[in-house]
Amino acid sequence: MKSMEKLEFEAIYGRQREINKKFGDHRNPFYVVCENIRSLFNVGSIFRTADGLRVQKLYLCGYTGYPPRKEIDKVALGAVENVPWEYRESAVPVLTELAGKGIQVVALEHTAGSSNFQEFNYRFPVAVVLGHEYEGITQETLDCCREYVEIPMAGVKQSLNVSTAFGVIGYELLRQYSM
Amino acid sequence: MKSMEKLEFEAIYGRQREINKKFGDHRNPFYVVCENIRSLFNVGSIFRTADGLRVQKLYLCGYTGYPPRKEIDKVALGAVENVPWEYRESAVPVLTELAGKGIQVVALEHTAGSSNFQEFNYRFPVAVVLGHEYEGITQETLDCCREYVEIPMAGVKQSLNVSTAFGVIGYELLRQYSM
Repeated sequence: MKSMEKLEFEAIYGRQREINKKFGDHRNPFYVVCENIRSLFNVGSIFRTADGLRVQKLYLCGYTGYPPRKEIDKVALGAVENVPWEYRESAVPVLTELAGKGIQVVALEHTAGSSNFQEFNYRFPVAVVLGHEYEGITQETLDCCREYVEIPMAGVKQSLNVSTAFGVIGYELLRQYSM
Repeated sequence: MKSMEKLEFEAIYGRQREINKKFGDHRNPFYVVCENIRSLFNVGSIFRTADGLRVQKLYLCGYTGYPPRKEIDKVALGAVENVPWEYRESAVPVLTELAGKGIQVVALEHTAGSSNFQEFNYRFPVAVVLGHEYEGITQETLDCCREYVEIPMAGVKQSLNVSTAFGVIGYELLRQYSM
């Protein structure tokens, strides 16, 4: 990381820590773990939706892009400053930490044992894991998840855009949490 | 329209008519009316989600971009060829036609009288109206709608990205339709 970028990163991170403190108690018990999300457009859109859902925290892992990036801001439209987030090199220790706190860890992935995301009973707090646009979640990370859900696809394409998919599952969490 | 573009348009339209015939009977009773969706990325993403939901038909109205456009294909990843669609200059006559067939017309828009989209009881077939990224649905078109729903936003931003919003409401339609 270049020195200027690092300073900017520290400044954002410092501000982020303040936001995390300020809003920590007033958020929905939803955590989002993004692994290797390639497109900054998708990261920005996930920030915007995470703001709408008032998620507890967004973990950006692997080669997922993270703020400050103007491409993220362009889509997030200010949401970056209002969502607690953290960059982590690997998703695996994040999931171990979350599970250790009693948080239900659910992978959004098409696997042989995946449940329909609308028929699954979430326990709160819950963490949703999202993977790469084409390759999905890595096997190593999938192995750390205990539950697997998928969004049914009735057409020719096998999956939704990852940021759309996050919106779809995120509002299902909100629906079940509000019941 | 340039002559070459027109030929290409006719070719796509002809193929589209065949798809419409082929799949007409095996689709979910969901119609989508897009008015003035500015971004071709959003149009492509809406196609991809519409394919996943097997919507009956997608109406692209006003200055919403429509196929063939490589920017749409890049995001739709082939879904364009599997979703019945039609371009219309204005959304107003489309809504009049749909309502005339007994289809429930629901605007996704923040208005004083909008219901929470998860608490609203949809009747099927249903048509969902989506508007411009910032300006929303035009007043003229809103006046043609009889029902209004909104996606609750708990953060600082007032709305989701329009293609994410379509995924969120689209899977709520599927949930209620499957019950």
